[in-house]
Amino acid sequence: MFSSAHSSAVYLDHAATTPMYPAVIEAMAEVFATVGNASSLHGSGRSARRRIEESRESVAACLGARPSEVIFTSGGTESDNLAVKGIFWGRRDADPRRTRILASAVEHHAVLDAVEWLVAHEGAQVTWLPVDASGAVTPDVVRAALAMHSEETALVTVMWANNETGTVNPIGDIAAIASAYDVPVHSDAVQAAAQLPIDFAASGLSALSITGHKLGGPQGVGALLLGRQVSCVPLSHGGGHERDLRSGTQDTASIVGLASALRITTSEMPKRSGELIALRDSLIDGVQRIAPDAVLNGPTGTGRLPGSAHFTFAGCEGDSLLMLLDVAGVECSTGSACTAGVASASHVLTAMGVDPVVARGSLRFSLGHTSTDRDVETLLSVLPQVIERARAAGLASAGAPGTHGGNR
Amino acid sequence: MFSSAHSSAVYLDHAATTPMYPAVIEAMAEVFATVGNASSLHGSGRSARRRIEESRESVAACLGARPSEVIFTSGGTESDNLAVKGIFWGRRDADPRRTRILASAVEHHAVLDAVEWLVAHEGAQVTWLPVDASGAVTPDVVRAALAMHSEETALVTVMWANNETGTVNPIGDIAAIASAYDVPVHSDAVQAAAQLPIDFAASGLSALSITGHKLGGPQGVGALLLGRQVSCVPLSHGGGHERDLRSGTQDTASIVGLASALRITTSEMPKRSGELIALRDSLIDGVQRIAPDAVLNGPTGTGRLPGSAHFTFAGCEGDSLLMLLDVAGVECSTGSACTAGVASASHVLTAMGVDPVVARGSLRFSLGHTSTDRDVETLLSVLPQVIERARAAGLASAGAPGTHGGNR
Repeated sequence: MFSSAHSSAVYLDHAATTPMYPAVIEAMAEVFATVGNASSLHGSGRSARRRIEESRESVAACLGARPSEVIFTSGGTESDNLAVKGIFWGRRDADPRRTRILASAVEHHAVLDAVEWLVAHEGAQVTWLPVDASGAVTPDVVRAALAMHSEETALVTVMWANNETGTVNPIGDIAAIASAYDVPVHSDAVQAAAQLPIDFAASGLSALSITGHKLGGPQGVGALLLGRQVSCVPLSHGGGHERDLRSGTQDTASIVGLASALRITTSEMPKRSGELIALRDSLIDGVQRIAPDAVLNGPTGTGRLPGSAHFTFAGCEGDSLLMLLDVAGVECSTGSACTAGVASASHVLTAMGVDPVVARGSLRFSLGHTSTDRDVETLLSVLPQVIERARAAGLASAGAPGTHGGNR
Repeated sequence: MFSSAHSSAVYLDHAATTPMYPAVIEAMAEVFATVGNASSLHGSGRSARRRIEESRESVAACLGARPSEVIFTSGGTESDNLAVKGIFWGRRDADPRRTRILASAVEHHAVLDAVEWLVAHEGAQVTWLPVDASGAVTPDVVRAALAMHSEETALVTVMWANNETGTVNPIGDIAAIASAYDVPVHSDAVQAAAQLPIDFAASGLSALSITGHKLGGPQGVGALLLGRQVSCVPLSHGGGHERDLRSGTQDTASIVGLASALRITTSEMPKRSGELIALRDSLIDGVQRIAPDAVLNGPTGTGRLPGSAHFTFAGCEGDSLLMLLDVAGVECSTGSACTAGVASASHVLTAMGVDPVVARGSLRFSLGHTSTDRDVETLLSVLPQVIERARAAGLASAGAPGTHGGNR
């Protein structure tokens, strides 16, 4: 029943979701065979609660946090929404002047759209922090924004690593700057936690989001790390679970699965990191050999997630590339899975200064714990023909009367 | 790995959470062995999406809804919060006069506390709909409240069946009354869906909450049925999943598990219902034989969930009864698991007119798909001694200087 039923396709989309570790599935299966609501007082309830509290301690230990700072949620989007809206409301309730959010322009939509809802619905103001050409938020940008707005700022939110380009931000520096103004900083570490060491205490952050399914755990579970002193209004009211910040019967099996996945991720990271970097660099070299005009987006040297490589191929539609690769047995994405199918240029690339028309010819290859040399070889063997076909389609489309060419 | 590792305890707390059906675990295990984010465009993503859309159709078919009316969530609490807050905001945004919520006084805390937050934080007004001595909201009460407040009412929320007493409300009548005023009605059917047939279309409701783990599915997944025309503001913003009402990577395995559990529940209901009623009535008869002064809370005849029996034992503390039963190998609860450990009388019982001091001596026995005659026999065999000890403890406590006796 637990045979690996993965299709034979080469999977280069680990940033969208990554296969579960077999040990995680085993740990969850063990919980599935029990019964127990962690809020129940009887033996079965206490067993469930014990599993959850042990998982909380484990998650905390893996991320340099205290157990009481771990709030289990249904995933990254909920963690991001809880942090952004909850801290905004908490800070504004304490001081009505604090209505401004400083957010990087390249956030995942879970942050971006939460901020925009607060602007449209709750009277928030936003300062979008620009990024440099590599996609990073520099400390100077945060310093300047806080110097101008510190009194009215509810929170700062800057992702640890970008989900499209893999660009890693100087989170410690940003948190230190905000700390001098006593402004809390949240960071979406949904991508980072799978591939970089995280030390919440050392980071100086007030809040940090992770999710299970990016690091070999199940979908539908995540966590928000939240400092004990950070005021946060819950999104979900009810039984008062999770420090009264996230009501709802706790999902024992998934929480156990998340903790297990994070333990494996953390323990394998020192070895995995080097392997991923080597594999990714061979992918980058190969792609640039095949398509010398392909632009590698993001930082030039270090400062990129070990498993990420994001390219723009001039004269191609990303969606065409993606579908042609899919037919050829290689699975990847144009950017965020969460905006797949949306026919507009990535806000991440345009914030980095990439021309919107050019930006649309982009592909993300993301490696993970099951990636092999053979995966990269397969990609490189099919890529030349794929690019050729996508360019031909792009030209045909640009030339066809009544279409909008590359600008669609 | 999938051996049933349930403890040997007699489990009479199915209303808190019920064991997963083995077929549900199998269905989820099959998904766990695959990889795929349902938002991804490649083959693995499309497979995940197909599983989710098939599950959506299945859930809709089981509940008399259209597939497009099924919004998958992380569980009952999220469904309740989304319905109550989302519809409140949606209606108020469309007409600022609509700030009132009509809510039954016996709602689960997921509704109750969501309403109270809207009052405290968002300027809502609330009319608590009283219940009769059986714990039911009568149509007259709703009619009277709407006659007075229809212009300013954002929504009505009345649970289908109560989680403590098992009292079933006349939901169809209530929805029909509100429909005449064009006011949407939400119903928390978290308990009802496990034991009663649900027909969303026939009910006339605008919104209805269910959760997986009360009906043999996994924890951490639920659904909100929401009419296509009902305006609802999301709690979670991001990738725009689930009709843009509930962003967050969809939890494929849990959604498949929920659909599977609901199919089993629905197909077995005709047979199971009679079995549960017979078993429950033998439990009720047995308890009343042992403790003739025990009061059966809720309706006298029909109008009770098949698996529920809720008693008040005069002169006892519910928590003492619960812990003594636990030691004797019988697991039950005093009321809602979500308020377990909270030292105050149930709001459900006090709304029914039960004296708060008396109300504290209450126990809920809830039966489900694994319940047997032997479970009831075991309960009845240990109950006399348990009641005797709890009464002795109650008397000792009431008599001891410096304590608050039965009033704690």
